[in-house]
Amino acid sequence: MIKVGIIGATGYAGNELVRILMNHPEVEVAAFGSKSYEGEKYSDIFRNMTALADDVCVHDTIEEMSEYVDVIFTATPQGYCAGELTDKALENAKIIDLSADFRLKDVHIYEEWYKIKHKRPDLLQEAVYGLCEINRDQINSDIRILANPGCYTTASILALYPAVKEGIIDTDSIIIDAKSGSSGAGRGAKIANLFCEINESIKPYSVGTHRHTPEIEEQLGYAAGKDIQLVFTPHLVPMERGILVTAYADLKAETSDNDIRKIYEKHYLDEKFIRILEDGVFPETRFTKSSNYLDVNFRVDARTNKLVVMATLDNLIKGAAGQAVQNMNLMFGLPEDMGLNMIPVIM
Amino acid sequence: MIKVGIIGATGYAGNELVRILMNHPEVEVAAFGSKSYEGEKYSDIFRNMTALADDVCVHDTIEEMSEYVDVIFTATPQGYCAGELTDKALENAKIIDLSADFRLKDVHIYEEWYKIKHKRPDLLQEAVYGLCEINRDQINSDIRILANPGCYTTASILALYPAVKEGIIDTDSIIIDAKSGSSGAGRGAKIANLFCEINESIKPYSVGTHRHTPEIEEQLGYAAGKDIQLVFTPHLVPMERGILVTAYADLKAETSDNDIRKIYEKHYLDEKFIRILEDGVFPETRFTKSSNYLDVNFRVDARTNKLVVMATLDNLIKGAAGQAVQNMNLMFGLPEDMGLNMIPVIM
Amino acid sequence: MIKVGIIGATGYAGNELVRILMNHPEVEVAAFGSKSYEGEKYSDIFRNMTALADDVCVHDTIEEMSEYVDVIFTATPQGYCAGELTDKALENAKIIDLSADFRLKDVHIYEEWYKIKHKRPDLLQEAVYGLCEINRDQINSDIRILANPGCYTTASILALYPAVKEGIIDTDSIIIDAKSGSSGAGRGAKIANLFCEINESIKPYSVGTHRHTPEIEEQLGYAAGKDIQLVFTPHLVPMERGILVTAYADLKAETSDNDIRKIYEKHYLDEKFIRILEDGVFPETRFTKSSNYLDVNFRVDARTNKLVVMATLDNLIKGAAGQAVQNMNLMFGLPEDMGLNMIPVIM
Amino acid sequence: MIKVGIIGATGYAGNELVRILMNHPEVEVAAFGSKSYEGEKYSDIFRNMTALADDVCVHDTIEEMSEYVDVIFTATPQGYCAGELTDKALENAKIIDLSADFRLKDVHIYEEWYKIKHKRPDLLQEAVYGLCEINRDQINSDIRILANPGCYTTASILALYPAVKEGIIDTDSIIIDAKSGSSGAGRGAKIANLFCEINESIKPYSVGTHRHTPEIEEQLGYAAGKDIQLVFTPHLVPMERGILVTAYADLKAETSDNDIRKIYEKHYLDEKFIRILEDGVFPETRFTKSSNYLDVNFRVDARTNKLVVMATLDNLIKGAAGQAVQNMNLMFGLPEDMGLNMIPVIM
Repeated sequence: MIKVGIIGATGYAGNELVRILMNHPEVEVAAFGSKSYEGEKYSDIFRNMTALADDVCVHDTIEEMSEYVDVIFTATPQGYCAGELTDKALENAKIIDLSADFRLKDVHIYEEWYKIKHKRPDLLQEAVYGLCEINRDQINSDIRILANPGCYTTASILALYPAVKEGIIDTDSIIIDAKSGSSGAGRGAKIANLFCEINESIKPYSVGTHRHTPEIEEQLGYAAGKDIQLVFTPHLVPMERGILVTAYADLKAETSDNDIRKIYEKHYLDEKFIRILEDGVFPETRFTKSSNYLDVNFRVDARTNKLVVMATLDNLIKGAAGQAVQNMNLMFGLPEDMGLNMIPVIM
Repeated sequence: MIKVGIIGATGYAGNELVRILMNHPEVEVAAFGSKSYEGEKYSDIFRNMTALADDVCVHDTIEEMSEYVDVIFTATPQGYCAGELTDKALENAKIIDLSADFRLKDVHIYEEWYKIKHKRPDLLQEAVYGLCEINRDQINSDIRILANPGCYTTASILALYPAVKEGIIDTDSIIIDAKSGSSGAGRGAKIANLFCEINESIKPYSVGTHRHTPEIEEQLGYAAGKDIQLVFTPHLVPMERGILVTAYADLKAETSDNDIRKIYEKHYLDEKFIRILEDGVFPETRFTKSSNYLDVNFRVDARTNKLVVMATLDNLIKGAAGQAVQNMNLMFGLPEDMGLNMIPVIM
Repeated sequence: MIKVGIIGATGYAGNELVRILMNHPEVEVAAFGSKSYEGEKYSDIFRNMTALADDVCVHDTIEEMSEYVDVIFTATPQGYCAGELTDKALENAKIIDLSADFRLKDVHIYEEWYKIKHKRPDLLQEAVYGLCEINRDQINSDIRILANPGCYTTASILALYPAVKEGIIDTDSIIIDAKSGSSGAGRGAKIANLFCEINESIKPYSVGTHRHTPEIEEQLGYAAGKDIQLVFTPHLVPMERGILVTAYADLKAETSDNDIRKIYEKHYLDEKFIRILEDGVFPETRFTKSSNYLDVNFRVDARTNKLVVMATLDNLIKGAAGQAVQNMNLMFGLPEDMGLNMIPVIM
Repeated sequence: MIKVGIIGATGYAGNELVRILMNHPEVEVAAFGSKSYEGEKYSDIFRNMTALADDVCVHDTIEEMSEYVDVIFTATPQGYCAGELTDKALENAKIIDLSADFRLKDVHIYEEWYKIKHKRPDLLQEAVYGLCEINRDQINSDIRILANPGCYTTASILALYPAVKEGIIDTDSIIIDAKSGSSGAGRGAKIANLFCEINESIKPYSVGTHRHTPEIEEQLGYAAGKDIQLVFTPHLVPMERGILVTAYADLKAETSDNDIRKIYEKHYLDEKFIRILEDGVFPETRFTKSSNYLDVNFRVDARTNKLVVMATLDNLIKGAAGQAVQNMNLMFGLPEDMGLNMIPVIM
């Protein structure tokens, strides 16, 4: 059994990590880390866990926790993981970081977008970006630090990767219009996240400045073999979970829906967790809800010769906890889908 | 492997049956029955099932289906199961009926409340009412027809059973104020169930006339050892799933919260799927969501010497598909909780 | 023109006060009071008011504000109004208090339920409880302090008043099961009020201890001519606004729906803001939304001889701001409905 | 008093027409037209109208109704108005058509996108497109047929008009990503519009084929002085009302936010119903809810030199009923804003 510690277990992504890991046949959750709720029963914070996870929350540092677990998931605010990660901890346990601390290779870009001084830039090159469907060959038991991709970024990169990789779109023309449920904003006590502020309204936010932008650009840049800059506009939708990405780009040549399908099938047909929908069927967030699937489809707008790609996922699962466990499986030599075969729940 | 057929697989309860049974280690779903969608792919109706249940829906009768399955779940409108059930079918396969056709022992009460002529009153005595936590000793492999309890009734009966059984409340004073999400109304194309009609509003309905009333009265009557009549008022809440029952009754004598706790623990402490919450913690539907749990708690209103009992469950799981599988497990000699260990999902 | 000051203008009830008063033909809103947002533009807090109410919020005391307005609405937490109200302020301006500070005549009951020391018990007898449909004859231009009823209490009292007043129910048997939208919990930044905590769930709270209980008991006690104790159970519903009260009581004698209708019509037929619905039509919160109406109907449960009364209102309007303006109109000799003829908005 | 008839009064836009017109000081609603509910009381269909609009619904033809009213609003499915409109009716009364029948000048484009044979192409040139903020000088008492713009189109056109008119963007690069609440889908009894299908999910639909596309293209084409083709992608959001448009286009030259602001202010500063938000404040649908306002703002994405424009409105008001009344006011020589000064309601 793999002993797992979670730091940030009382956030929404943390709660999903706990839920998934409790069902994982090779895992024992050994530490429920929470700064805010230290000393309280986990099931008193998340009462869905009554009689299931009545453990008491601890406030151990990464290093302290590393002494008694095999792997630590950090579902923590930006800056925490880099700030606390010690060489000793890395000797003791593997780190799967759900924050952005180790996602970007260029520390200057990190510091520019996140407005935080990075505490361990020396580890940036070592960390592996864990988007299995693209980087699977790099994710193995040698890894000490795995940077788990962001929720918007997972949806955005996987939506566009085949088109970019195959060079069929003009990368200067990419526009990503993304829509997310409210759990993406976290569990902080902020007026902006109150029911009466979120419900029955949709809004754009961080227009032109969202911090997932450079992450998408970096990864799609690798696929393109050159630097990319794109427009990314996130929106907050009155729902709890789910992300829909609608991406647009100019096609370089006249291309049919069928041509696009061949390209996407080339890259994704064998991917268990990516479902290319049938022609004319567009993704809806509810159909990936509570699962590790990403659904994708596309439509060539023949009149303007632009490509529209749509992708959905559950921001807390494929966009966070599920993907993190998928990475853990690879890092521990287990079947990639172990513990992740949740059937989507339509409501 | 148990071969299972589902009639009514394209309703909301049907979809949950499919989801639960697909994860059940001893079950193979052999028939997706649907009158409305005969010939269509199941995953075209419920796209969460894309790549998971791409089977084609069939429109077999109960008897036809009984020839190639071991057990048939009927998640169908009232009257269907009694109308179609043949002796031949009963020889071939077990029936777990999620409708009300076999829940009431007295055919006159059925016909009075349901305004339907019962087609097989001769089978009413044979059918077993499948509320495991109360009737477990009657649910075994001899059963041919199992009547799966209703959603409101499961919550209402389990909320009050210990108090009634132990004779601490005046059964003439029982009031059940119940609240349900919209999936309880089914998947029919009715204006009253449109998003714009349901959202942002709560309403009572079927006041004094709801058809779950006699079912609650019959079962609690067994516990009381006498006939019971009570007030049952259902309400429609703007949410997809979940039922909360708030039940009230006069205490016969001065009784403390602690006295009540002892009585409920006496009956429920060993019940895996019933969680008695800690003192002062009241049930919320989200904490049982997508699971087979029923959460219950109570409060003595000392000023008026009345008992308030609150219980929550997921109407599609413990109130329908989950309980049906729990019954199937008992009917096939399997562990009662097999395939039912879903951890509640808070959102 | 009446000069109006609002203290607590940046809460949800405050925002509705502003909206209603801006449309009132005889009112000028002269002060937008807000401790939290002093110095900020009102329309920066509530952007619906952009170009409509760009005034800067002030943090004046009641006394300071009383020097330049004719009436002050205090939409503030319990204890604030009693704590700040001075004799000087009362000489300068009328006070309409939307908090509970002056609703209960007995200071001990206030202090017991609110756990606050009352700072001006000397003013309790003078204050008038402003439930116009019952106390209209006491609400006039002589009043210095008007206690505006609570949201749950308005719905509960008006639901039961005719039955209690006419003595047809056993007042020892009253049970009020109330359901409210989330705006009733205010605009505080609390985790419990986040979208992801409220949405898709219903819960009871403050079972047996809610502070509106003694207010309902006091007012219904006046109608009964004796002390009353009842059970009041509030529930939080995943919607923004609206209250539904479902009240139950034993009928003293056999009584028909029609008998009840006569009694309710006797008291309410001439009330503009109370709509007795047609036989068999039950109230839904959406049909009073954004208006000053209270809808009411009832059903005799003949089998148990119990009365079920249902009433709905918009907690921010008839349950707060609208009723407060209705009281203001009477206190300034204006038509009671001036500025209050908002047609309910179904969504 | 203007006598008004409404055909399609029992749809969602119809209900808002009724509500607005009942508050209009110069209007009497003389006919509640409804094919589906002929002979029923209007307030039995929309119970918010209890005691306010208890009139009986009629099923008069346009010509019949024209004999006793001054103006007819047709809030009806595509094809109805053109199919029923007679020369006699046009002599008797003015027509304000909320459907698409008279919005497009080119009958072939209409027939291609709507898949309907147009019954009165001879009237297309006469009909005036009623987007007051752009076409105000054409909207006067001479008009017999006014084509009221669509909801998506009003938001899309007004979002982009200044940029297109001033020639600062490449019109080949326009992408409109639109998001709408569920009331836009109408009040038909369809499974796709059930609460359990809409809630907690977002989806794109009619990708590349939505019928509002040619309407946007035609109107923006007039502004550009040339034909335009653009990408328009609508999405369904789990909320009842509101539209947000996020539009993207390549800027022809380097342009600052401030340059854009000047251009938008040039066109909109004097427009009562258009609010250009402050720098950095992005529109949210809830801030225009239940009002006739359109909120707009923009952001230059300097890294890619693309313009992002965002606009919100209430699809049933500024996108339908409110705009229709705004047009009626102009057609009857009344102040354009008469009866339309509803303050947005935040929830």
